[in-house]
Amino acid sequence: MASYLKEEHLIFRDSVRRFLQKEVIPYYREWTKQKSVPDDFFKKMGDQGFLVPWADEKYGGFNADFIYSVILAEEFERVESGIGGCVLHNDIIVPYLYDLGTEEQRKRWIPKCITGEWSTAIAMTEPGTGSDLGNLQTRAVRDGDHYIITGEKTFISNGLRAGLVIVACKTDPSAGHKGISLIVVEEGTPGFIRGKKLEKIGQPAGDTSELIFEDARVPADNLLGEENKGFYYLMEKLQQERLMCAIQAIAAAEESLRITIDYVKQREAFGKPISKLQNTQFKIAEMATEVALGRSFIDDLIVRHMDGEDVVTEVSMAKWWVTDMAKRLVANCMQLHGGYGFMEEYAIARRYRDIAVTSIYAGTNEIMKQIIAKKIGL
Amino acid sequence: MASYLKEEHLIFRDSVRRFLQKEVIPYYREWTKQKSVPDDFFKKMGDQGFLVPWADEKYGGFNADFIYSVILAEEFERVESGIGGCVLHNDIIVPYLYDLGTEEQRKRWIPKCITGEWSTAIAMTEPGTGSDLGNLQTRAVRDGDHYIITGEKTFISNGLRAGLVIVACKTDPSAGHKGISLIVVEEGTPGFIRGKKLEKIGQPAGDTSELIFEDARVPADNLLGEENKGFYYLMEKLQQERLMCAIQAIAAAEESLRITIDYVKQREAFGKPISKLQNTQFKIAEMATEVALGRSFIDDLIVRHMDGEDVVTEVSMAKWWVTDMAKRLVANCMQLHGGYGFMEEYAIARRYRDIAVTSIYAGTNEIMKQIIAKKIGL
Amino acid sequence: MASYLKEEHLIFRDSVRRFLQKEVIPYYREWTKQKSVPDDFFKKMGDQGFLVPWADEKYGGFNADFIYSVILAEEFERVESGIGGCVLHNDIIVPYLYDLGTEEQRKRWIPKCITGEWSTAIAMTEPGTGSDLGNLQTRAVRDGDHYIITGEKTFISNGLRAGLVIVACKTDPSAGHKGISLIVVEEGTPGFIRGKKLEKIGQPAGDTSELIFEDARVPADNLLGEENKGFYYLMEKLQQERLMCAIQAIAAAEESLRITIDYVKQREAFGKPISKLQNTQFKIAEMATEVALGRSFIDDLIVRHMDGEDVVTEVSMAKWWVTDMAKRLVANCMQLHGGYGFMEEYAIARRYRDIAVTSIYAGTNEIMKQIIAKKIGL
Amino acid sequence: MASYLKEEHLIFRDSVRRFLQKEVIPYYREWTKQKSVPDDFFKKMGDQGFLVPWADEKYGGFNADFIYSVILAEEFERVESGIGGCVLHNDIIVPYLYDLGTEEQRKRWIPKCITGEWSTAIAMTEPGTGSDLGNLQTRAVRDGDHYIITGEKTFISNGLRAGLVIVACKTDPSAGHKGISLIVVEEGTPGFIRGKKLEKIGQPAGDTSELIFEDARVPADNLLGEENKGFYYLMEKLQQERLMCAIQAIAAAEESLRITIDYVKQREAFGKPISKLQNTQFKIAEMATEVALGRSFIDDLIVRHMDGEDVVTEVSMAKWWVTDMAKRLVANCMQLHGGYGFMEEYAIARRYRDIAVTSIYAGTNEIMKQIIAKKIGL
Repeated sequence: MASYLKEEHLIFRDSVRRFLQKEVIPYYREWTKQKSVPDDFFKKMGDQGFLVPWADEKYGGFNADFIYSVILAEEFERVESGIGGCVLHNDIIVPYLYDLGTEEQRKRWIPKCITGEWSTAIAMTEPGTGSDLGNLQTRAVRDGDHYIITGEKTFISNGLRAGLVIVACKTDPSAGHKGISLIVVEEGTPGFIRGKKLEKIGQPAGDTSELIFEDARVPADNLLGEENKGFYYLMEKLQQERLMCAIQAIAAAEESLRITIDYVKQREAFGKPISKLQNTQFKIAEMATEVALGRSFIDDLIVRHMDGEDVVTEVSMAKWWVTDMAKRLVANCMQLHGGYGFMEEYAIARRYRDIAVTSIYAGTNEIMKQIIAKKIGL
Repeated sequence: MASYLKEEHLIFRDSVRRFLQKEVIPYYREWTKQKSVPDDFFKKMGDQGFLVPWADEKYGGFNADFIYSVILAEEFERVESGIGGCVLHNDIIVPYLYDLGTEEQRKRWIPKCITGEWSTAIAMTEPGTGSDLGNLQTRAVRDGDHYIITGEKTFISNGLRAGLVIVACKTDPSAGHKGISLIVVEEGTPGFIRGKKLEKIGQPAGDTSELIFEDARVPADNLLGEENKGFYYLMEKLQQERLMCAIQAIAAAEESLRITIDYVKQREAFGKPISKLQNTQFKIAEMATEVALGRSFIDDLIVRHMDGEDVVTEVSMAKWWVTDMAKRLVANCMQLHGGYGFMEEYAIARRYRDIAVTSIYAGTNEIMKQIIAKKIGL
Repeated sequence: MASYLKEEHLIFRDSVRRFLQKEVIPYYREWTKQKSVPDDFFKKMGDQGFLVPWADEKYGGFNADFIYSVILAEEFERVESGIGGCVLHNDIIVPYLYDLGTEEQRKRWIPKCITGEWSTAIAMTEPGTGSDLGNLQTRAVRDGDHYIITGEKTFISNGLRAGLVIVACKTDPSAGHKGISLIVVEEGTPGFIRGKKLEKIGQPAGDTSELIFEDARVPADNLLGEENKGFYYLMEKLQQERLMCAIQAIAAAEESLRITIDYVKQREAFGKPISKLQNTQFKIAEMATEVALGRSFIDDLIVRHMDGEDVVTEVSMAKWWVTDMAKRLVANCMQLHGGYGFMEEYAIARRYRDIAVTSIYAGTNEIMKQIIAKKIGL
Repeated sequence: MASYLKEEHLIFRDSVRRFLQKEVIPYYREWTKQKSVPDDFFKKMGDQGFLVPWADEKYGGFNADFIYSVILAEEFERVESGIGGCVLHNDIIVPYLYDLGTEEQRKRWIPKCITGEWSTAIAMTEPGTGSDLGNLQTRAVRDGDHYIITGEKTFISNGLRAGLVIVACKTDPSAGHKGISLIVVEEGTPGFIRGKKLEKIGQPAGDTSELIFEDARVPADNLLGEENKGFYYLMEKLQQERLMCAIQAIAAAEESLRITIDYVKQREAFGKPISKLQNTQFKIAEMATEVALGRSFIDDLIVRHMDGEDVVTEVSMAKWWVTDMAKRLVANCMQLHGGYGFMEEYAIARRYRDIAVTSIYAGTNEIMKQIIAKKIGL
């Protein structure tokens, strides 16, 4: 057990597990089939205090430390990837509103994020722009006390549902990545159009879509932080975002390994459990080792991140290595399941299709290596 | 171009491509969504002469050589994995009927297999038995001039549609793998029940199901070959079955690489095509090399198989190495597509979920290594 | 910097470095060429207090904690693999004498081990026995107040020089691994014959040899611990032995990476440093990540081992993973050096040949995986 | 057996094997220890007709086809890497003299190359220049009917012994790779100085050295081909050079695997041969597969190269993949040997240190990937 876990955390984890047992586990296979989580699920999480628990009490939070976020991430991931979306909301998007928002903005937005009235999204990627933010095409032009936003975004997690979307726009088109601003667009804004839901090969219950801005008219008050500082803000938040990805991937790996160990112990071939075959034993020993290494590294980073250290290099390492490892591990675990590993009803099969995106999102693993190389001084 | 291709083969390939262009490419995405190929598709293939072309003219075939089978396998695979099912029918199942059948049986079954009136299946695997055939539980008991078959089969490709199923049954339960017989069960046989369609994470249009035999009453005339020699027959046919798997996997790899090369040439990031990045170049050079090695090896095996050589060891090598390589390659190609690689509408995403089963079916890759080790004398 | 390092440790590390700078770095290339470390080197280490520093003051030690051992291991390894042999002596062999020895035995042996008058060896492996200790052929037969030892040992590190050798012998040949005892053989014992120095492809300065016991007559007082409990004692000590191997391997990896980063920054090709090539950058980012993961894992184990925890599973994981990783890493670093990577005068070339044995000694990496599988319950 | 082998080739192979059995196998371990092959060995090979057998009879050859070269390469490699040097001479260097030489030059040089009076070398690499030929610093300045050559070369195989050295020099320093010429320097040329023998970690009997040209005065008649066309000539010859490297590497891999299979069959652990362990079986099955793939690919290239096809892309693929594979394979085979794998007297240990350079020489494997990427059109 990780050394950072205190009694309060264990209590919280129990309550998360009870919630999952009651509200998720009986239903999530159905949600997956319908490719959608029920409308009221986010509200239910809010009722439990699972949304933005780290926020100050004056907004409705309870000043929870980062470990609460870790626990939520891990426990949801253990059930199934891409269910719930509380990590994205709690630890990736709302922190922008909270840390960059004025007191007025916080009061306007944070309580709705905590109750679950609003889920949130952040719109960075565009059809022609992946990691190359300097080349964003979405424009925001000041018009009196409004911005007029024009452009298209894609791969937006939570895009169809989000009550509030942080949009990365160019406010100074000539300035490359120094001309980016973050503007909050609320649901119902004229010209803000939800595009089509994107069909993914994995995480089917997840809401991923295009968003279109056709001269969307947004109050200038919705600017987050300062104009043209968006790139800087985005970079600053990436340490936590990528750490959360690594945490989810290690939890997925641990869970995949656990179910595979159970499977090989009970599955027989040629008169004995396949766990008695040396190939099975070595493969599992190798996977258990990689999981232990990843877990040890991440647990250390969790503490250092919580302590406010700059661990960008190490988090970039964790993000690419753990997601790559998890992909390899899931493919190997699938193989040990034989034909059942390809069947939708077996968890390992769903893990295989769900894990694939982890090496791509939150900055591709190639970007991680570039960051590391730069930090090393190459 | 492979040295074994003659003009007649090129003409045939053109006709296959025209057929695919007209009858498959406009529709297959829809079939995938509906998880089913239309009922009349098999008949259409029969009309084209694509079913069992290698059969003698007296049954309706045209004595085509093995290269015709290779061409059909490759051209269908290039469009999408798991569409059509002609490889299974032509090169894996009908050969049992043809090679082991009496003249009477051939006349009864082969013409329907050629016209497409019947598609076919082979039922080996059982819920508790993967590669361990000696442990089959399905029983066939002689009762006058019938066999009474009882048991359950699973993972049966083409199970719901097949007009004819070759069932591996125990006729001598005390004799392990020396007590297996192959019995042909035709549609409409009393006690022959189609089980549920199995939901797979890939190859969704493919028909994979359970089959149940509840005292199914089958004429003794439907015994294929001799009683209790089933295991031997199954082994004998595996060389071709596994070679076909390797052929499909190398075609999938070639196609995945082709679309990825196209993608990286047109996709830009940071002001230039990502094909100009050294990482992209090296990854693609590495994949192109592995594809070339696999292709060279398989082309050699195609010729030797056609010449009647025993290439069991080499085919086992090809099966595991090419399918493993194809899985790695597809995952790497997916990564080079960034976020688009996870989207259902991108071919590489579908390849990722479809390729997964290739290392499992037709004998897991672990079984292949056992065979090789044995043949080496370890 | 590892959290377990206190000021006293840093001071000690400085003194080790000064010693290496003065007594080792100017000479070790010559030792390597002559395939031998000078006779008086061990004594010099004793003079510095580098031998068995953890022993109690009454024997001549200074009650140093485990971190001193870690520092000695790392600092010697950073210069060159297989120089000095203090890890083997301090942390692998002398602990047997110390922990299992009676007060009389300790007084007889430990002081000489601390001054460097004696270096030590442990003789387990036999020509026909690798990891299979139950099958040892070396016999020790009680004859009055002596044991008569007969047998051959091989791969004995420090075999030619050791003043004291702990010999694993069968005292009950019928009892498999429950019939093993540990008996101390001192230099000059009649019938104790040094065999030939073994020529290795790496770590040339290291003294590895065969030892022959031809009716060697050893006082019964030289039995370590109880008769027939040798296997149990050996198992008990393996946690520390394998942890030390992992520590040396991670230090070798860190050093190899460091010199490679320096090399690629200064080496130019096609008009710019090769550190500017994306392939170089990605390869180094990948290696730096694996080193960071290994280091984090080992640092955690160092603390837990020092705290007396049973971390056999984790140490087995560290041993195989870190040594395998180090081998891959050194081969990759060598490649980045181009032709210079094959030249004896370049450190990376020597690392390549020296690192090879780490996946074999102290229990092969295959044995590690067996242990892990067993501990997982497979 | 490869399809290109005819009876004459089998007879030739037998004679090569007899020669090796008599003149090499009893001595090569001693040569390795002394780091030198005897002076008269090259002459002995000449006496056998093993030098430049493909040359026309009028120069002393016997118009042998390329398969003779393949056989010599494989048979020498099977004994030990880096013994003999006939591949370098026959198939890499003499072809320059033969193909580019005037009739007068051929008559002057080729007969001595065939009798073994002269061995040969080619001097491309310089201390600061690896694969970047455009940046060569060695100058050749025309002075009447001589060239004055100034510069330093390194990593020159056969440098100390060669009677004739082809030197790549800049004749037009301003023209990058379009200013390179090839000039033949004979032994005894004033200003042509042999540098120090380079100590390598592998292939110790191989003669690798620096060469220094201090105003070396060479007759203008020794220019090979046209002035400033050297780069073009070098590129043209690389297909054969790299194919030979791949042939040697696959032979080394085959031989390493063969001795390992023998070893695991006779070595016992825990009461049975280690060949009965599933891990051993799978590892060997995997290696046997990779060797079979490499061999099939190379055999195909041998035929196509002999037919005069441009197979630069495929040869580049073979060079990097087979040498990388051979390095992995040798490391894995070494591991299966346990402690013996690290001992100089075991062939697998020597393979480990000898194979390392194959991924570096004749164009690093990174250069191979660049060539492939370029040929693919990236």
